[in-house]
Amino acid sequence: MSFTEKVKVGVLGASGYTGAELIRLLNLHPNAEIAFLTANRFAGQRMADVYPHLSHLDLPDLIAIEEADWKQADVIFCGLPHGTTQETIKQVLSEAPESKIVDLSADFRLSDLDTYAEWYGHAHQAPELQAEAVYGLTEIFRDAVAGARLVGNPGCYTTAAQLPLIPLIEAGLIEADGVIIDAKSGVTGAGRSEKQANLHAEISEGMHAYAVGTHRHACEIEQGLTLANGGKAVMTCFTPHLVPMNRGILATSYVKLTGAESHESLHACLSERYDSEPFVHVMSLGVAPATREVRGTNQCRIGVFADRVPGRAILVSVIDNLVKGASGQAIQNMNVMLGLEETAGLDQVAMFP
Amino acid sequence: MSFTEKVKVGVLGASGYTGAELIRLLNLHPNAEIAFLTANRFAGQRMADVYPHLSHLDLPDLIAIEEADWKQADVIFCGLPHGTTQETIKQVLSEAPESKIVDLSADFRLSDLDTYAEWYGHAHQAPELQAEAVYGLTEIFRDAVAGARLVGNPGCYTTAAQLPLIPLIEAGLIEADGVIIDAKSGVTGAGRSEKQANLHAEISEGMHAYAVGTHRHACEIEQGLTLANGGKAVMTCFTPHLVPMNRGILATSYVKLTGAESHESLHACLSERYDSEPFVHVMSLGVAPATREVRGTNQCRIGVFADRVPGRAILVSVIDNLVKGASGQAIQNMNVMLGLEETAGLDQVAMFP
Amino acid sequence: MSFTEKVKVGVLGASGYTGAELIRLLNLHPNAEIAFLTANRFAGQRMADVYPHLSHLDLPDLIAIEEADWKQADVIFCGLPHGTTQETIKQVLSEAPESKIVDLSADFRLSDLDTYAEWYGHAHQAPELQAEAVYGLTEIFRDAVAGARLVGNPGCYTTAAQLPLIPLIEAGLIEADGVIIDAKSGVTGAGRSEKQANLHAEISEGMHAYAVGTHRHACEIEQGLTLANGGKAVMTCFTPHLVPMNRGILATSYVKLTGAESHESLHACLSERYDSEPFVHVMSLGVAPATREVRGTNQCRIGVFADRVPGRAILVSVIDNLVKGASGQAIQNMNVMLGLEETAGLDQVAMFP
Amino acid sequence: MSFTEKVKVGVLGASGYTGAELIRLLNLHPNAEIAFLTANRFAGQRMADVYPHLSHLDLPDLIAIEEADWKQADVIFCGLPHGTTQETIKQVLSEAPESKIVDLSADFRLSDLDTYAEWYGHAHQAPELQAEAVYGLTEIFRDAVAGARLVGNPGCYTTAAQLPLIPLIEAGLIEADGVIIDAKSGVTGAGRSEKQANLHAEISEGMHAYAVGTHRHACEIEQGLTLANGGKAVMTCFTPHLVPMNRGILATSYVKLTGAESHESLHACLSERYDSEPFVHVMSLGVAPATREVRGTNQCRIGVFADRVPGRAILVSVIDNLVKGASGQAIQNMNVMLGLEETAGLDQVAMFP
Repeated sequence: MSFTEKVKVGVLGASGYTGAELIRLLNLHPNAEIAFLTANRFAGQRMADVYPHLSHLDLPDLIAIEEADWKQADVIFCGLPHGTTQETIKQVLSEAPESKIVDLSADFRLSDLDTYAEWYGHAHQAPELQAEAVYGLTEIFRDAVAGARLVGNPGCYTTAAQLPLIPLIEAGLIEADGVIIDAKSGVTGAGRSEKQANLHAEISEGMHAYAVGTHRHACEIEQGLTLANGGKAVMTCFTPHLVPMNRGILATSYVKLTGAESHESLHACLSERYDSEPFVHVMSLGVAPATREVRGTNQCRIGVFADRVPGRAILVSVIDNLVKGASGQAIQNMNVMLGLEETAGLDQVAMFP
Repeated sequence: MSFTEKVKVGVLGASGYTGAELIRLLNLHPNAEIAFLTANRFAGQRMADVYPHLSHLDLPDLIAIEEADWKQADVIFCGLPHGTTQETIKQVLSEAPESKIVDLSADFRLSDLDTYAEWYGHAHQAPELQAEAVYGLTEIFRDAVAGARLVGNPGCYTTAAQLPLIPLIEAGLIEADGVIIDAKSGVTGAGRSEKQANLHAEISEGMHAYAVGTHRHACEIEQGLTLANGGKAVMTCFTPHLVPMNRGILATSYVKLTGAESHESLHACLSERYDSEPFVHVMSLGVAPATREVRGTNQCRIGVFADRVPGRAILVSVIDNLVKGASGQAIQNMNVMLGLEETAGLDQVAMFP
Repeated sequence: MSFTEKVKVGVLGASGYTGAELIRLLNLHPNAEIAFLTANRFAGQRMADVYPHLSHLDLPDLIAIEEADWKQADVIFCGLPHGTTQETIKQVLSEAPESKIVDLSADFRLSDLDTYAEWYGHAHQAPELQAEAVYGLTEIFRDAVAGARLVGNPGCYTTAAQLPLIPLIEAGLIEADGVIIDAKSGVTGAGRSEKQANLHAEISEGMHAYAVGTHRHACEIEQGLTLANGGKAVMTCFTPHLVPMNRGILATSYVKLTGAESHESLHACLSERYDSEPFVHVMSLGVAPATREVRGTNQCRIGVFADRVPGRAILVSVIDNLVKGASGQAIQNMNVMLGLEETAGLDQVAMFP
Repeated sequence: MSFTEKVKVGVLGASGYTGAELIRLLNLHPNAEIAFLTANRFAGQRMADVYPHLSHLDLPDLIAIEEADWKQADVIFCGLPHGTTQETIKQVLSEAPESKIVDLSADFRLSDLDTYAEWYGHAHQAPELQAEAVYGLTEIFRDAVAGARLVGNPGCYTTAAQLPLIPLIEAGLIEADGVIIDAKSGVTGAGRSEKQANLHAEISEGMHAYAVGTHRHACEIEQGLTLANGGKAVMTCFTPHLVPMNRGILATSYVKLTGAESHESLHACLSERYDSEPFVHVMSLGVAPATREVRGTNQCRIGVFADRVPGRAILVSVIDNLVKGASGQAIQNMNVMLGLEETAGLDQVAMFP
């Protein structure tokens, strides 16, 4: 593929927040342009009708997914609900097998089909594609992503949790089993659907835990930590909380050190591992990152701390759930899949305040 | 003491948020009235100048602490900064030994003088009063509070954390050592002082952890859990986070079960323990409480959850940091100390939305 | 009616924010208790299922409106959608003609049936009751409210706007025609229904005007100002804005002075008019009120200012839209209708911060 | 000047929000790079110490203004407090007369020295430079900006207010005198200084008017409207309000039509006037813009509405106060002054949600 021309991008399910975020980021991408946008509920409308803040851009009108011509796109971002996604992607790849696909749903994240069936309540509809799919936690699986046709883009919580934990488990510095991840998210993680629970009056000036012990991102995290643990299965405690902000995830992970290691070893390990990564920044020892430092960016920032309890340590990681937790990492994966500059379109500074 | 007349209340350090909150709550108290309000920085001004929302109330003007006549008050709430408080209370009790005092600072919370010196950086200035002081976590130490002259009102985080944990440790259902408490607070916990870090533009739309592994409330929690553990010393992991809301604390505690107990045993234990308590409510099994359910009230709500990791459980507790975490519990303690109805002045419904 | 017993209160449409707010306020009312709560969508459920923050109260379960026995209530608050309300109240008063009713919808606010039909799109269904209904802006129409069987509780914007304007027009100090009212509201004014536009992510960190020149509260304001103007019809410019907060309305009114009056005359007029009112407070000249000063209370606060443009003045008025703008004024009207203390249940201090 | 090299930019007073915002925007500017950053209070520190979200950028350390070498910069943005700015810029231009300066303070906005002295309380310290300075409302004064050495960057409120009003006054469609501007701002307009009034707990969940009839931006607006009015002096009513959000200004302007014009004429006039402007967008007739549509961008969006009151109309304009109201317009002016592409560095899409 030559890039004297821009990459053509199709977005399925463009009316969600991740769709709008893809457009925000792609607008500054030097090598990409939007080919089509689908949103069945709004087919025939302008993107500006759904998202007035995009009204000044020159964007194609929204179409139904049935109207899309897959061949018009080099890359397809798929932001459809999980479950239906499998059928759609199967169809796309049967009609346009050269397509590159980054799927933002949960449909191609779990390599074990039984685990998928257990957590999502139905058998996987495209097991042969799942076998092909690459898990798109870019910093960890970059080489596989580079050669992939289908990437399952990681969940938001799971990205925040895995980036600090995987290198430490791989290095044998912490016990892989029994990690406790206390995660806090802004409300855009729940999407744009009309739910009473997400009204401003229900969210602002308060917080709560939800899906305690049962959230689906637990199995995705465990998949990653198990792999880092040499395939030896681990269980993880994962507790999500909803915080009155729009963007941002903060994950506080409580870990047990192995042997005589200290939290300083963890810091050294992570610092070295991510030293040349453009999007992952390890804070100075003892410095806590804030979600506002990564708002609107594709960064993950990680802080490492001693625990008062001997033999334990604390990790704090932050991302913007809509960027590194969704659309930004999707573009990062696209860049890697197509051999583009990995940071292309992703070098915005955090919007603070 | 006869209550044909109202109890006279003095407030030292009335210009802080806890001072304003005391006035808000006392305004509806059937048996109490304000005798004097001190705030050296604003001496001579009206309370309405400091807090316009109180302007329609008939309140005494602010005076310097040196102008206060201790004998005019039956009860004194002390909302001064820690450190200076010890000297002040020593003076009050030497001049007016019949006074009842509820101290909202940290000065009389730690029974061990060495622990105080270690965490607060100086020797305690009133050790004989510390020996007399009662720790005012009312539901746990009600009898001692009833007979006390000086009550050290618990910290906000510590109230939220201890109420679910102490009964479970006392009952031997969870391991006392190594409890992990991940706590989240609204910004009023930081007070009303002019700090850049607490500006709206710095707080809203973001969150962060702070004082990781070093927050002073850790030693206060450990004191309580150690006592519940029959005096056998415990260490606790306590991590505070700042969340973009004004009021509310949510503490998520990760605990290890002893023996063959399940989270259902924890739920049964707490339900029984707090069954007749007017301010502590244990949610139905698996139901998560939200800070907004207790906003403006003296309640603590507790949820109990299974952990995916076998042998462990999760507790979620919520309070309003300015009420049950400060001024409300102070009034509750006053009520107990004076033999008033314990709920007097504290039966407001949460302000939601 | 003797009040050795408490007044029995029924609430129709109790699942909305105004229903929850009625319960919050009535909980502290010394002379009232809840008899029944209807909410057809949630019939058979507990109020705690709809509003967890009320779970510790002893409340009757929600019933369908068809199940209500009107005779069990002395007073009925009606929080149903406009349009359907007329039929319901007609039925209530035919079956239980002794009932006292405070209607929180717009159905009985407009005395002119043609105006109603024009703005609400259909003929009034209970014109004979409209003839009987009293407009419940308590401070202005107290005597009529005292003798009423059916009170149309004013809208939130209209309460904030009329309280400063009516006395000035009655006194001939400002021109009644062409007043400009720029109003800003928190989001609870839009109710609890699941609308994308009211999601946290759509509301926070931004604001907008809406229904510019077409909002239905304009005709209600004009009705009040026309009456104050001796019946001479006026037109008013009214522009509502949605602000990222839950509660509060701030109305900035731009007025033209008559003759040689100054803004000081306006201040004197309002100060005198509201001097003995428990809920309306006129700020010192030049002091601006804030919505947070009245949050959770039944107060209206009014500021009076000179305009740089000669011959003009500016009025700023604030209320809590759920209290003085809805449920609080409804209880105030109930108190007046039944001869109770007008402030009963309404003396809470603003919750700040 | 050749642009094979990047323009060197110096920022005076870089520790304020406008300084951080300049860096955020310049980071994506294809033709500019930071030469030095001054902040006397933080001299010797890294920008990352003051703004952690900038820590991953390669920025020069903060220096004292006395250490700056003016010759290292082609353009200087001056974000110092008003008053001191005049002396500083006089010195810069005396030592480096070739410099291009965009001043973000109020010091060079008012062409009339008496008006300056009246509103700012002291005589202007650099009247000869004021005579030279160009008022940088780019869309209105582009040609003058292009030839300027010193640009006084407009205030945030004044930018939002003038952009819709000036063309309409110039066209004679509205009366220039007596325009009423009701403006609402987010809290970053107050800067980053430690003021109790700007704490999160004081701002969130409430709003208020301030400086009613006395805000300094009134004279700046009047200067612009007077000029549009052919020099015939006008008075304007301008009322600012503080809204609980970080960014954004919304100005609602109430205007009187001249002759037989309607609001449709106003819409046509503005649409034509701004048709080819990259940053000013006129909404379809009757559509209201929201501040969130321009958050983080250099756009101004304008809505035009009929007023119910005959002969009047309503204009709603929105900007991001830190971008088009400060740093973005400053860069726009730099681009024009240097002959760069006017939109360079300013084509970010709004960050929504």
